[in-house]
Amino acid sequence: MLKVGIVGATAYTSLELIRILLRHSNVEIAYLGTRRETNDRISDIFPSLMKTFDMPCSRITECDMPKNVDMVFVALPPTVSMKYVPKLLEAGIKVVDLSADYRFSDKSIYERWYKEEHTDSSGLEKAVYGLPEVFRERIKNAVLVANPGCYPTSAILGLYPLISKDFVCTDDIIIDAKSGISGKGRESNEGTHYCECNENIEAYNVGKHRHTPEIENVLSLISNSDISVCFTPHLIPMNNGLLCSIYAKLKENVTDEGTREIYNVFYSKEPFVRVKTDGKLPRTKDVVNTNFCDIAVNFVNGRAVILSSIDNMTKGASGQAVQNMNIMYGFDETEGLK
Amino acid sequence: MLKVGIVGATAYTSLELIRILLRHSNVEIAYLGTRRETNDRISDIFPSLMKTFDMPCSRITECDMPKNVDMVFVALPPTVSMKYVPKLLEAGIKVVDLSADYRFSDKSIYERWYKEEHTDSSGLEKAVYGLPEVFRERIKNAVLVANPGCYPTSAILGLYPLISKDFVCTDDIIIDAKSGISGKGRESNEGTHYCECNENIEAYNVGKHRHTPEIENVLSLISNSDISVCFTPHLIPMNNGLLCSIYAKLKENVTDEGTREIYNVFYSKEPFVRVKTDGKLPRTKDVVNTNFCDIAVNFVNGRAVILSSIDNMTKGASGQAVQNMNIMYGFDETEGLK
Amino acid sequence: MLKVGIVGATAYTSLELIRILLRHSNVEIAYLGTRRETNDRISDIFPSLMKTFDMPCSRITECDMPKNVDMVFVALPPTVSMKYVPKLLEAGIKVVDLSADYRFSDKSIYERWYKEEHTDSSGLEKAVYGLPEVFRERIKNAVLVANPGCYPTSAILGLYPLISKDFVCTDDIIIDAKSGISGKGRESNEGTHYCECNENIEAYNVGKHRHTPEIENVLSLISNSDISVCFTPHLIPMNNGLLCSIYAKLKENVTDEGTREIYNVFYSKEPFVRVKTDGKLPRTKDVVNTNFCDIAVNFVNGRAVILSSIDNMTKGASGQAVQNMNIMYGFDETEGLK
Amino acid sequence: MLKVGIVGATAYTSLELIRILLRHSNVEIAYLGTRRETNDRISDIFPSLMKTFDMPCSRITECDMPKNVDMVFVALPPTVSMKYVPKLLEAGIKVVDLSADYRFSDKSIYERWYKEEHTDSSGLEKAVYGLPEVFRERIKNAVLVANPGCYPTSAILGLYPLISKDFVCTDDIIIDAKSGISGKGRESNEGTHYCECNENIEAYNVGKHRHTPEIENVLSLISNSDISVCFTPHLIPMNNGLLCSIYAKLKENVTDEGTREIYNVFYSKEPFVRVKTDGKLPRTKDVVNTNFCDIAVNFVNGRAVILSSIDNMTKGASGQAVQNMNIMYGFDETEGLK
Repeated sequence: MLKVGIVGATAYTSLELIRILLRHSNVEIAYLGTRRETNDRISDIFPSLMKTFDMPCSRITECDMPKNVDMVFVALPPTVSMKYVPKLLEAGIKVVDLSADYRFSDKSIYERWYKEEHTDSSGLEKAVYGLPEVFRERIKNAVLVANPGCYPTSAILGLYPLISKDFVCTDDIIIDAKSGISGKGRESNEGTHYCECNENIEAYNVGKHRHTPEIENVLSLISNSDISVCFTPHLIPMNNGLLCSIYAKLKENVTDEGTREIYNVFYSKEPFVRVKTDGKLPRTKDVVNTNFCDIAVNFVNGRAVILSSIDNMTKGASGQAVQNMNIMYGFDETEGLK
Repeated sequence: MLKVGIVGATAYTSLELIRILLRHSNVEIAYLGTRRETNDRISDIFPSLMKTFDMPCSRITECDMPKNVDMVFVALPPTVSMKYVPKLLEAGIKVVDLSADYRFSDKSIYERWYKEEHTDSSGLEKAVYGLPEVFRERIKNAVLVANPGCYPTSAILGLYPLISKDFVCTDDIIIDAKSGISGKGRESNEGTHYCECNENIEAYNVGKHRHTPEIENVLSLISNSDISVCFTPHLIPMNNGLLCSIYAKLKENVTDEGTREIYNVFYSKEPFVRVKTDGKLPRTKDVVNTNFCDIAVNFVNGRAVILSSIDNMTKGASGQAVQNMNIMYGFDETEGLK
Repeated sequence: MLKVGIVGATAYTSLELIRILLRHSNVEIAYLGTRRETNDRISDIFPSLMKTFDMPCSRITECDMPKNVDMVFVALPPTVSMKYVPKLLEAGIKVVDLSADYRFSDKSIYERWYKEEHTDSSGLEKAVYGLPEVFRERIKNAVLVANPGCYPTSAILGLYPLISKDFVCTDDIIIDAKSGISGKGRESNEGTHYCECNENIEAYNVGKHRHTPEIENVLSLISNSDISVCFTPHLIPMNNGLLCSIYAKLKENVTDEGTREIYNVFYSKEPFVRVKTDGKLPRTKDVVNTNFCDIAVNFVNGRAVILSSIDNMTKGASGQAVQNMNIMYGFDETEGLK
Repeated sequence: MLKVGIVGATAYTSLELIRILLRHSNVEIAYLGTRRETNDRISDIFPSLMKTFDMPCSRITECDMPKNVDMVFVALPPTVSMKYVPKLLEAGIKVVDLSADYRFSDKSIYERWYKEEHTDSSGLEKAVYGLPEVFRERIKNAVLVANPGCYPTSAILGLYPLISKDFVCTDDIIIDAKSGISGKGRESNEGTHYCECNENIEAYNVGKHRHTPEIENVLSLISNSDISVCFTPHLIPMNNGLLCSIYAKLKENVTDEGTREIYNVFYSKEPFVRVKTDGKLPRTKDVVNTNFCDIAVNFVNGRAVILSSIDNMTKGASGQAVQNMNIMYGFDETEGLK
């Protein structure tokens, strides 16, 4: 049994991680760390776990790393994570990091968008971007996996076949994204107040969301060219679920049929991508509490309209983190996730 | 035109007050006060008011009362309100206070439940409890009206005919109340976080909610005897609306027919109480954004099951406050409210 | 007092119409017609109206038009409306029609999208498209106003200044729209079942929604050229509210500043359009229950990203219908609507 | 591997059953039957199952029973179920029936409340009421288990210790119940329309809900005396979850401490009942998607206020059905459910 730890155990993503890991045949949760002084059991924080998983939380400090664990999921905020990850790696512990801290090979992009100096260049060099459908081979041998953001997971999976085959005009990609409120995290502020979110839709961070460079970075890697996107996220009154509606102009000579075909080619063997057929469209309710990404491709006036939906907390965070662990350790990739 | 002010202008109840007062033919909003330093217009705080009502907010301090207003609505938190109200009264300004500070003639009850010494005995003596259906005559001449709490408004209106006519066993009254989240106010905390409230029901403060003594106090006044109730509030995932399901054992010789009849007697001339007939039941959606209280009386095994629903922000707060003002100034009682 | 009637009185839009008309100083609701045999009062159908407006409904048939009314709002489904409207006009009654039946001057477009022959060419010739911000002058003298669809209202108001000034590439306009569930009407089916809609986002009718030709038609009229758009509507788990996120490539030489400026030029005197400033963005909760359209213009990589939000039942239906009536009869345009 | 079938496979409860059974180590789903002619795969009806479980549905008729299955879950409506169950039993197939058809040993009660003659007296004699916490021993040898209703499960578990120990006045029990909308089933009608349910609370079937006699029946069995309850269900705007707030007057000499103690005695070894301590209260969100029943006991003025919450689709339906199967076949009682 692989002994795993979770650092930042009181985040919403950690609750999801715990739920998944409890169903996993090959691992045992051996450590739950938080940065606060605490005597709480995890079931005091998440009462749904009572009688199921009542493990006590430990305080983690930068000088006091967990012992007796083989790998750790880090669910700390960006700019905090990079203070803990190097210590874990030093101690011989493999890491899947759910923050943004190791998602950019180019440190300067990170620093520009996260307004903080990156202090772990060595980690950055080792890190592999944990989107299995694109980088599975590299994940196998990674000691540090940077788990993708929720919007990037949905957007990149929606665009991967098109970009990879050079089917679309890369200067004309629009991503209109809609997410449930859990994407905002557990912090209480005006933006997460029930009465402000309920019975409301609004866009936020138009052209300025930090997932923009992450999407552009990975798409550029895939296409071997500079890709910029117009990315607009919106908040939707529901807990979990995320839908990207992606608009991309097809190049001349690219046919609708050919396009549909490459989605099948790219994804028919993927365990967690489902391409919709017969005009059916993704609904976030079909992917919530699953690790699936549902994708439909439509065509309107020479443009591909791709709908790509995930559970922001599962395929968009904790489910994908476990999928990455499965790949790193040679477990069945779907273990714990089906 | 009566010049009115609002103190505590950034509360949810104040937004509701403003909406109602803007429709009122006899008043003009002349002052908006907040305790914080501010340069904001009210439409910066509540963008729905933009282009409709863009009045600047003023800072109010205990030594700096609004000028040029005839009456003021005070929407400050309990224990804060009683610091401002005496100054307003001194300046010759009439007050409708939406906090709990003037709802108890017996100071010791207030102090026990609100854990703070009451510092305005003089105000307490002047204050009239602003439930028009019960205390209309006294409201007419009041200089200070204590606007009732949301749960008490719904519960007392549901029980008033029964208690008044001595139809029920007064030691066996159960009030199971359900409220939308706006009842929790604009403060952001774990209890108002979208993901904690959404897709959830829970009871809170069982047997300990501060509206319990308020309900008991008024019912006791009505019945001329000591009444205690078993009051359990619950939070419901919606913005506005409140339903009390009230269970009261009928005394012997009291008939179902007789009971139905007295509801008609008590309420047929009330402009804001609607007694449901033909087996129809109240729905909070029918009273939201109105000043109505919808009531249905049912009978199960010798017990009256009374359902009483209001909009917690309107009849349960700001609508009733305006109704009180209308009565104090001899305006049509429904002005601004229909 | 103008005597107005409503035909199709049991639709959600009619409830909204009634609420607005009851606040209107210049009109009296004199008739409520439905196609079904009925003894119901309108307050039996919409209990929120009890004690406020208890008027009985009448059965309307094609041979039995309302008498004693000056104008009528028709809230019948498309393809049904055109059977009643000619009879009303014949009887000298002015009409605001909320269906799609009179929105297309070119009958063949209507017939292609609504799959039914258009039987009232004469009405089509008289009809004026009732978007006051664009066609106010023509509405003044109209006897038949075709009230715009909800998506077209939001989308066209968002694009009107840009199209009018020829600032954008007209072959590259993307409209990603999000609407609350009331847009689906009062009919119960799988698509309106609570558990199917709640905690879910989904796109529908991608590239095939009937509001597409309506948007294209009006934009083409404004620009004097053929405009096609890529329009994708989505359903959002909330009752009311609609947001269009519009993406349009700016022509060379068009500046961000210049673009912002024209929005002010076009809308600063409009009573119901609010252009957001200082980076603020529209929220549907700020426009719900109002007749406002809130618009923000952003710029991302040479593209205008316009956010345009309305209440689909008010500015997107009944509010705009009353605004049109106000214009037709020379009332203050905002009467009943502020 | 036990081969199980599901009859009535397109109900919401069947989706839940499938999800649970797919996690179960000892069973294989061998049959999915519906009453309609169909070529659908179950994943066509519930797209969330795509790529996970794409089994075709079969048409079931009264003369054509499933073959090659050892036991069947019947998820048909009441009065329909009793037409199929006898045929299944005849064919030697064990049954867990999720309808109400076998919940009443006294046929006349069933017939009075369900307005239909009961046609399977023989089945009624064999049936065991499948509430494991109360009837576990009898379930072990049952060939036909009548799976309890959702409200009865929550209400009876909340009252079982009190009734069993004769701690409360049995003529004074009030059950105020709140349920999510999924309890209404998949049928589309005005009562399940999104805009009618959302932002609303309402009671329904006051004193007339069919779960009343079911609750009374089982409590009477437990207490060996006639118990009647005052049961009021309410609809809450959320998908899943159910909370009963139960009010019961304690007999003299019964102490709060003693009462708390018996809840621990009764439930400390139960795998699916969690008694809250330290003043914590149940939240439906803590039990949704689990088979747990969370219970808190409070005391107000000599009355026990018991809060009992379950997921109406899991412990209130499909989870409990699997728990019953586990008991019938000697599997670990929690298999598939933790």
